[in-house]
Amino acid sequence: MGLFSADIETLDDLFVHTLQDIYYAENQITKALPKMISMATDPELKSGFEKHLRETETQIQRLEQVFQMHGQTAKQVNCPAMDGIIKEANEISGEVSDKEVLDAALAAAAQAVEHYEITRYGTLVAWAKQLGRDDCANLLQQNLDEEYATDKKLTEMAEAKVNRRAA
Amino acid sequence: MGLFSADIETLDDLFVHTLQDIYYAENQITKALPKMISMATDPELKSGFEKHLRETETQIQRLEQVFQMHGQTAKQVNCPAMDGIIKEANEISGEVSDKEVLDAALAAAAQAVEHYEITRYGTLVAWAKQLGRDDCANLLQQNLDEEYATDKKLTEMAEAKVNRRAA
Repeated sequence: MGLFSADIETLDDLFVHTLQDIYYAENQITKALPKMISMATDPELKSGFEKHLRETETQIQRLEQVFQMHGQTAKQVNCPAMDGIIKEANEISGEVSDKEVLDAALAAAAQAVEHYEITRYGTLVAWAKQLGRDDCANLLQQNLDEEYATDKKLTEMAEAKVNRRAA
Repeated sequence: MGLFSADIETLDDLFVHTLQDIYYAENQITKALPKMISMATDPELKSGFEKHLRETETQIQRLEQVFQMHGQTAKQVNCPAMDGIIKEANEISGEVSDKEVLDAALAAAAQAVEHYEITRYGTLVAWAKQLGRDDCANLLQQNLDEEYATDKKLTEMAEAKVNRRAA
């Protein structure tokens, strides 16, 4: 972004830019998740991350459909927010010495990822509707629903098991 | 963090580390909000940011109380996630040329901030309860409730007005 990026003049420009931002973010998540899968000890947490990796791949395909439907080439722009969230997850993981405490840290890190996606998809759905693109909004809503479901599942897993074991 | 930071061995260590993370994040938000206030055009959005700045100052005081109740000195650790979220807000704001589209971008950026806080406070409340610190959990829950309320208010404002004007 910055010097060579196009100026944003309309809500449509802002919508496309934010699509490019979340497209980058989702692609970064597919790179980060395998490391989280390998570090997780709890089998349910591990399989939850594996399921979310497959879901993320489908979400990326939906984003590519939205780009296409909106007459745009799928393109990524840097997303310092997701870079920061992933950097923080890596840092904290490297500092936790107990494997059950590490599971609690990983679940929390995954929820920070989910919440970033929830806020961006929530915004994108609202903007798509405002732009009269209910077709795009419907696809983005599917991604949003999956992120909410993943976040809820992580909360349940953390409270029922992961945090108890870590304590 | 990193080379000179203490290793995290217990859930209590992780709880304190995450308190230090959100303490840094809230302090960064008090620095970022005045710029967002000065850039916002819509009076309701502007006054919403002003209200949230005052709320954030109270939230910082609650965090200082939690540190004290837990026998810790209030301390900040770098939070790359919040740094990234704020960096992204600054970048996008600098690229939007239309003031009504800028309001839509600012509302979305503020919601990304809120969602980071929501996920961290949600985690901190769960960990405090797990550690038997219901007194700390109660204070953290007050911050969480305020972040949820701010996010909801931003959604309502965006959908009822800000996005319509930007379109």
